[in-house]
Amino acid sequence: MNAEIIAIGSELLTPFRQDTNSLFLTERLNQLGVEVVIKTIVGDSRERLTSVAQHALLRSDIVIFMGGLGPTEDDLTREAVADALGVGIRRDEDLLKKLAERFAARGYKLTPNNYQQADVIEGAVVLPNPNGSAPGQWIKGKYEGRERIVILLPGPPFELKAMFDEQCRDRLRATLPPAFIATRVLKVAMMGESLVDSRVAPIYKQYKDVQTTILAGAGDVQFNLFSQADTMEAAQDRVDELAGKIEDELGDALYSSKGESLEQIVGYYLQMRNATLAVAESCTGGLLAERITSISGSSRYFVGGAIVYSNELKTEFAGVPAGMISKYGAVSREVGTALAEGIRSRTGATLGVGITGVAGPTGGTPEKPVGRVYVALASAEGTEIEERNFPGDRKRVRWFSTQLALDMVRRKLM
Amino acid sequence: MNAEIIAIGSELLTPFRQDTNSLFLTERLNQLGVEVVIKTIVGDSRERLTSVAQHALLRSDIVIFMGGLGPTEDDLTREAVADALGVGIRRDEDLLKKLAERFAARGYKLTPNNYQQADVIEGAVVLPNPNGSAPGQWIKGKYEGRERIVILLPGPPFELKAMFDEQCRDRLRATLPPAFIATRVLKVAMMGESLVDSRVAPIYKQYKDVQTTILAGAGDVQFNLFSQADTMEAAQDRVDELAGKIEDELGDALYSSKGESLEQIVGYYLQMRNATLAVAESCTGGLLAERITSISGSSRYFVGGAIVYSNELKTEFAGVPAGMISKYGAVSREVGTALAEGIRSRTGATLGVGITGVAGPTGGTPEKPVGRVYVALASAEGTEIEERNFPGDRKRVRWFSTQLALDMVRRKLM
Repeated sequence: MNAEIIAIGSELLTPFRQDTNSLFLTERLNQLGVEVVIKTIVGDSRERLTSVAQHALLRSDIVIFMGGLGPTEDDLTREAVADALGVGIRRDEDLLKKLAERFAARGYKLTPNNYQQADVIEGAVVLPNPNGSAPGQWIKGKYEGRERIVILLPGPPFELKAMFDEQCRDRLRATLPPAFIATRVLKVAMMGESLVDSRVAPIYKQYKDVQTTILAGAGDVQFNLFSQADTMEAAQDRVDELAGKIEDELGDALYSSKGESLEQIVGYYLQMRNATLAVAESCTGGLLAERITSISGSSRYFVGGAIVYSNELKTEFAGVPAGMISKYGAVSREVGTALAEGIRSRTGATLGVGITGVAGPTGGTPEKPVGRVYVALASAEGTEIEERNFPGDRKRVRWFSTQLALDMVRRKLM
Repeated sequence: MNAEIIAIGSELLTPFRQDTNSLFLTERLNQLGVEVVIKTIVGDSRERLTSVAQHALLRSDIVIFMGGLGPTEDDLTREAVADALGVGIRRDEDLLKKLAERFAARGYKLTPNNYQQADVIEGAVVLPNPNGSAPGQWIKGKYEGRERIVILLPGPPFELKAMFDEQCRDRLRATLPPAFIATRVLKVAMMGESLVDSRVAPIYKQYKDVQTTILAGAGDVQFNLFSQADTMEAAQDRVDELAGKIEDELGDALYSSKGESLEQIVGYYLQMRNATLAVAESCTGGLLAERITSISGSSRYFVGGAIVYSNELKTEFAGVPAGMISKYGAVSREVGTALAEGIRSRTGATLGVGITGVAGPTGGTPEKPVGRVYVALASAEGTEIEERNFPGDRKRVRWFSTQLALDMVRRKLM
């Protein structure tokens, strides 16, 4: 089964905004065994919208429209879809009454521009919208002799998601042939995409029936496995078998085999070991602490730390001797080590992380170029330190540095 | 002049990836006076791609294809566009030679699957790609009797951006009627979108010739003004006049009138006043420091601070008396104030910021619900503190809190 998604709204054709609803819908449709084959973004022009609707109806089994259902004269989806289908529109008196009640409950009077929100395409089922005033519509019928399902959803993500999950998913499932889908997400830290892929591609290429999508970020590679089979067990077996082989190949470079984030995994390990963590960050400026504390409940294992941006604070908060900084420089193996050890002893945490480096774009020297970062991890057994030259801009260097720090903590606790 | 943008690649039809190149191209096209009217995302299917190309060529003056120019059998853009135009393809021997040289320089041999990267659509100008192996193509001609410009660009953002800016922009400018465009970006902190809009809409609605786009984030509203006129002066005058009226209406709620970020503005002010800043963050966990240090050169005015996630560290790093925490609670007006004053005196910075609150989703109580945050700013003149109940999830509460803190610093220095 194929679907097309059409997002409507001139604001989605500016340099500032992007359709994101379609990612949600694609995930949901994939779970029903439906493939999204074309996405279109079109402005508030009745002619263009009708043209786009007609082409989609000719090509695809399911066509989902998002947006353009509101009360303004720019909201043309109902009219354009009716035009494309070659059917009329009726004003639903019952809907009109409910709209008036909704407005009255909020102390407003229903104004004439709102009446069009009660317009229903001939043959459509109305999808009530508990989260907004524009209802959706569901149409199942023939177009040029072929069976089609047409769905109109409101544009605001909160309204769209609720309406799809509560009113469209089961309707679609009842209509479509049963689909048995299994997915798995595997994640790898601090290995380049091409290196990971060169090791894993020979494995997943043997699983033609499992769709493998690779996403790469700074210091992070993610494998999304997707399998559709004749039974749930068969689908699950296939992704699990492939996931197992990838796990065997990558070993402990793989930090997650069920989609957890690196921050979550580090939190699990710290709790499991009954350990606590403190950080002293220079070039990452708080990013490591921010990532750790983005997890709710992180206060159980994260005590805090210091952002030691100035040399004085490196001494004040992490006890780095001023003489060491002037001798070796703030960006050095010695200062990185001292930051980790100093913050650990100062806070009494089980583990201490120290980061110092040149995030750029300025501040680089021939000896210590932009991207040079030292990440140290201090524990009761001693201190380990990594020296790296990370590529990319300031943001990327900072991200890489925190990714390495989290991965070092993970490996330490494994 | 109208344009359509077509992004090609099955990975763009998964729940994981999104076309972002089109935002860049839209900005560039708008600057040339070209409006983007439809965007399409299509997979690696020759039939669908040809169909999409034909519809676009019928409707729009300029059609830009992105991606699908590589060496694999999934790279079908050249063939599909030639099909749609009804013309042939020739293999360019000169291109083939250059490809072979490029490969040889990297120590590789040109394999047969790469030959198709030397395929050129009849009538096309080749656009060399210094950043990758797939060249682009430029075709100017008639389609069904109408003048059309067709551009094929590679998918990787780095390659696409360089090729457009270096090889397409001037070509387009030479072809299109001259366009005189002026833009302005205005930003407001810590005012709700509907409140800002209710005050500003009566103003910008009088400027029908200036396109005003409003973007709202947590504690941030941005106005993008866009004007096209017969001369550059006229366009600039119109956006400047409207910007001036919006500035008058919003007063010092407006923090930027040329697009700068709040972090940048705070940095400008601190340097202008020869002042320094330190922070003590509890619930924001380093996010405030991370935002401040995302600006290159922030070490000139930001000394650092402490992430005081545990109560012990509130005492250890910011000197908050343990008795105060047990008496009033860690999330309290008193502790917020003590954090700001403590970190200021401890670091010797001109200004000290303290943040404590309940970011959620857990940890709320009837007295101190999720979203309750105290942000304090200490200076030589004393300490000011704000109590807020921010809406939304953990991420949003944390963002709002740092936005308020930055805005308090800005207002203090104004």
